[in-house]
Amino acid sequence: MIEVEVKGYADEEVFERVRERYKFVRREYHEDTYYQHPCRDFSKTDEALRIRIRRFNGHFEAFLTYKGPKIDSASKTREEIEVPIEDPDKHAMILEALGFREVMTVEKVREKFYVEKGITITLDDVEGLGRFIEIEAMTESREKVPELVEKLREMLMELGVSRFERKSYLELLLEKEGTHEEA
Amino acid sequence: MIEVEVKGYADEEVFERVRERYKFVRREYHEDTYYQHPCRDFSKTDEALRIRIRRFNGHFEAFLTYKGPKIDSASKTREEIEVPIEDPDKHAMILEALGFREVMTVEKVREKFYVEKGITITLDDVEGLGRFIEIEAMTESREKVPELVEKLREMLMELGVSRFERKSYLELLLEKEGTHEEA
Repeated sequence: MIEVEVKGYADEEVFERVRERYKFVRREYHEDTYYQHPCRDFSKTDEALRIRIRRFNGHFEAFLTYKGPKIDSASKTREEIEVPIEDPDKHAMILEALGFREVMTVEKVREKFYVEKGITITLDDVEGLGRFIEIEAMTESREKVPELVEKLREMLMELGVSRFERKSYLELLLEKEGTHEEA
Repeated sequence: MIEVEVKGYADEEVFERVRERYKFVRREYHEDTYYQHPCRDFSKTDEALRIRIRRFNGHFEAFLTYKGPKIDSASKTREEIEVPIEDPDKHAMILEALGFREVMTVEKVREKFYVEKGITITLDDVEGLGRFIEIEAMTESREKVPELVEKLREMLMELGVSRFERKSYLELLLEKEGTHEEA
């Protein structure tokens, strides 16, 4: 299954339009810790390994996720393998023993909305970066990706989005950190 | 916590002595898949990464386990980090995407016995290798390891064990495979 995601910069007006038009699903708090591979430069191979801790409605969940390189030039589409984990701290200990190094933890508040069958919108307020909107759909076939991306981009533009972003929050935060270091 | 283990070669007589003297806990079936690190030679660093599938009394459990190098010259004592996993196949997919390679799957039937508080004996019948007995205890302090190892070795000798083995089943199976290849 391929996850097709288009992300754009948002502001409070875009957030309000989504809240008025679509069905609210839930509000989540994410704490995502990203790891660097012991012998592969993920920033060059465009991969990612993440432990996500997700809290919502008093629940606590954790996942280990591998993200493969992007496979489409206009979107964030990539292959993803995700498994639930029971003990994120111990998992982190195993990763560290294997030589994986913690890069950064990204924290955000996410609101999820149902758009139509198979399409969801998320509103993200990311610590240190600000507001973003993501629209997501799933497809089984790589051939359908470009057409689906175009549809999703148009839906975001209708909501008032004018600037898109393919980079991950991790990449944006690392860039920001780099700028600070240079200053 | 440090797991102190002493392993020896066994035969049906040793197995019978254990079955007569100690309290039977349960019989398990293990399917252990070992992985090679993408850029570290575990056979040289004396580490191991394993996915274990364990079946007993109709249950199914899976674990991801990292084993650090042995820290004692007379026993199999090593540091171990283990987490339960829900979906071993997807976990294996993530490991493979990260460059870990499957080395071998070791299958065995294990019978567990309770000896006394904190001490257990396991009788292993390993596919392709034969019968082994392991005695195991836990300690919090590295200083107590040598004394504990001596006690465990004596207990095995009393049961008729004359030959000890520090190598893992994986190492023994790989050696056997190597011998066959040379023949």
